[in-house]
Amino acid sequence: MGNPVSLSEHVIEAISRVVGNGPVVLHEPTFHGNEWEYVKECLDTTFVSSVGKFVERFETELANYTGAKRAIAVVNGTSALHIALKLAGVKENDEVLVPALTFVATANAVVYCGATPHFVDSEFCTLGVDAVKLREYLTRQTEQRAGLCINRGTGNVIRALVPMHTFGHPVDLDGIMAVAHDFNIVIVEDAAESLGSFYQGQHTGSFGLMGTLSFNGNKTITTGGGGAILTNNIELARHVKHLTTTAKKNHEWEYHHDEVGFNYRMPNLNAALGCAQLEQLPAILNAKKELYNLYQKEFSKIEGVTLVAEPMHCKSNYWLQTILLDEKETYQRDAILKATNESGLMTRPAWTLMNELDHFKNCPQMNLTGARLLVKRIINIPSSASLLKN
Amino acid sequence: MGNPVSLSEHVIEAISRVVGNGPVVLHEPTFHGNEWEYVKECLDTTFVSSVGKFVERFETELANYTGAKRAIAVVNGTSALHIALKLAGVKENDEVLVPALTFVATANAVVYCGATPHFVDSEFCTLGVDAVKLREYLTRQTEQRAGLCINRGTGNVIRALVPMHTFGHPVDLDGIMAVAHDFNIVIVEDAAESLGSFYQGQHTGSFGLMGTLSFNGNKTITTGGGGAILTNNIELARHVKHLTTTAKKNHEWEYHHDEVGFNYRMPNLNAALGCAQLEQLPAILNAKKELYNLYQKEFSKIEGVTLVAEPMHCKSNYWLQTILLDEKETYQRDAILKATNESGLMTRPAWTLMNELDHFKNCPQMNLTGARLLVKRIINIPSSASLLKN
Repeated sequence: MGNPVSLSEHVIEAISRVVGNGPVVLHEPTFHGNEWEYVKECLDTTFVSSVGKFVERFETELANYTGAKRAIAVVNGTSALHIALKLAGVKENDEVLVPALTFVATANAVVYCGATPHFVDSEFCTLGVDAVKLREYLTRQTEQRAGLCINRGTGNVIRALVPMHTFGHPVDLDGIMAVAHDFNIVIVEDAAESLGSFYQGQHTGSFGLMGTLSFNGNKTITTGGGGAILTNNIELARHVKHLTTTAKKNHEWEYHHDEVGFNYRMPNLNAALGCAQLEQLPAILNAKKELYNLYQKEFSKIEGVTLVAEPMHCKSNYWLQTILLDEKETYQRDAILKATNESGLMTRPAWTLMNELDHFKNCPQMNLTGARLLVKRIINIPSSASLLKN
Repeated sequence: MGNPVSLSEHVIEAISRVVGNGPVVLHEPTFHGNEWEYVKECLDTTFVSSVGKFVERFETELANYTGAKRAIAVVNGTSALHIALKLAGVKENDEVLVPALTFVATANAVVYCGATPHFVDSEFCTLGVDAVKLREYLTRQTEQRAGLCINRGTGNVIRALVPMHTFGHPVDLDGIMAVAHDFNIVIVEDAAESLGSFYQGQHTGSFGLMGTLSFNGNKTITTGGGGAILTNNIELARHVKHLTTTAKKNHEWEYHHDEVGFNYRMPNLNAALGCAQLEQLPAILNAKKELYNLYQKEFSKIEGVTLVAEPMHCKSNYWLQTILLDEKETYQRDAILKATNESGLMTRPAWTLMNELDHFKNCPQMNLTGARLLVKRIINIPSSASLLKN
């Protein structure tokens, strides 16, 4: 079926028909609303930092949009994961289940808590954690002691599981929540990529004890740098806010802190940008869905590749459009990446699997056949909402 | 001598003569330059996040201004301290000497490294670490083993010392550098409060192995939230940059990370604000010095309080103007705080001493007589550069 040259050329042609001839980046933000107005208000009032109305407003509007009872804005998605895991009770010598196929922040946040990432496999429909294989693995590999899930191999507690909604596509939350329930494992959802993605009508990040969002510049909406923690537990939300704002006790002038806190505040300047971006989110999501439709029309004509669609019963934000190479075409991945990037159409592969990074290679892991194959198959293609204007 | 009422009234009168009748906050930023232009450029180009020209420009200009060979912009002063200590070699079971009289971030950053803060005393001239008492203490309390400074009491390595330039006043760097040298202890300067402060003509934060800055909204200049690490060690600077930007290796499209990194980047949006603010720094410093002169004229008339002046051979940024109550007037501190704040003139005391926070109360400490007395004597008064316009 086809030679390397022709599949690369087909891919370039399909992308170009939708987005033009480039140069086109993988993802850039879209500022078509009140971004200037709100940011300027911060400068005019000098409220650019930890004091100001936009942080609270952004938090309220995030909660309203996602349906989570509370949202706490923080400085980025990594810090959100760190605090969520910490308040999920993750501590030294614990293990935390994270997909091998994820951005490095998911695994790093585990290390920040003094715990060890334990890598789990991903499946093809959602690109996320494979709940069926995970259940089989935990059944073999763990035992319950005093209500805790113990890794038989290491003797450590498996405290939490962090499913990540890859490129915005919701994972199999029914399957994953059931596994977590049955094995007494806390769920912290890494929804860094999935603002605007819904699973059976409910927003991703609002299923677990906590969920985390990212508003980095490459995400669906941006605050420059930023993140948030979602939770339906109001007491926990208070603790998140306290811990991310140096754990200072309220007092008119005294500086007293009641635990080792963190400076993970989102500045008001960045929250102002976020408020304006959140207003644009529905339009951005529409554009990204339309971009998917246009790509789908093109890629359906090409043999050897499939455009990734939102999973069943899900609404995806289509953060990063993704093509999957057929297994027999995976040998062409690097040629396609090279050809597209050289022609000015920015593409990228999936992340290096976490278990293949030197500093994580000795961490516990299940059989990762699914993730290993996915890495060879995945190519992300230009995905900005602004591309629809070409 | 006076009675409680009259000293409060004198203080209120002195402040009011300089800044008007209030309400006046303790410190607010001043945006009179290119702040809006640079921030708007970020929005117009969509480069608000980790990509964009302002981060590098801010770093270059910070290095030029401070005379440090390199400056690396990060997300806030706390993260700067965390990474500086980590790269100074601070690790689990180490101890790090920090002033008991400091903002909590100095001590928290030690804990983030898995180490224990070890609290040291401060002196009256600089409000910072007392080098003379510290030398005496370390002589008694420590011994050298294999080139390391060992706490005889705990058996742990004392790896680093973090002098903090309180309210912008440079500490006794000659004394402190000599102690660090003689006891084989690494210096990381906490210069969060001292951008624009010089010790014998050299910028604070550029003496130790690394120094850290903060650009929080309450600081002399602000980026909303932000910080930086200064160093004269170019290899170390490269490592700081790498570690604060997720430790990703350079590659056109691969995501490969060679150590557990951190997401401590300063977004381009915030760096744009910082570039504009840095242009204003000389004018801001002039205004703050002039504010000191005006306060000095008023407070010199009042018995029982002294306005803190820059130490000998130093140029201070006068970040927070500070009055010191005479020892016999310290009983009036809370009455003065209450009266000034109630009259709309925001004041505040020093921070609660670190050794008095519940979570630090079991940490090692030297005799803290100096710091204990300073806490009773210190009151910060309104200090914004913008107050000169009243």
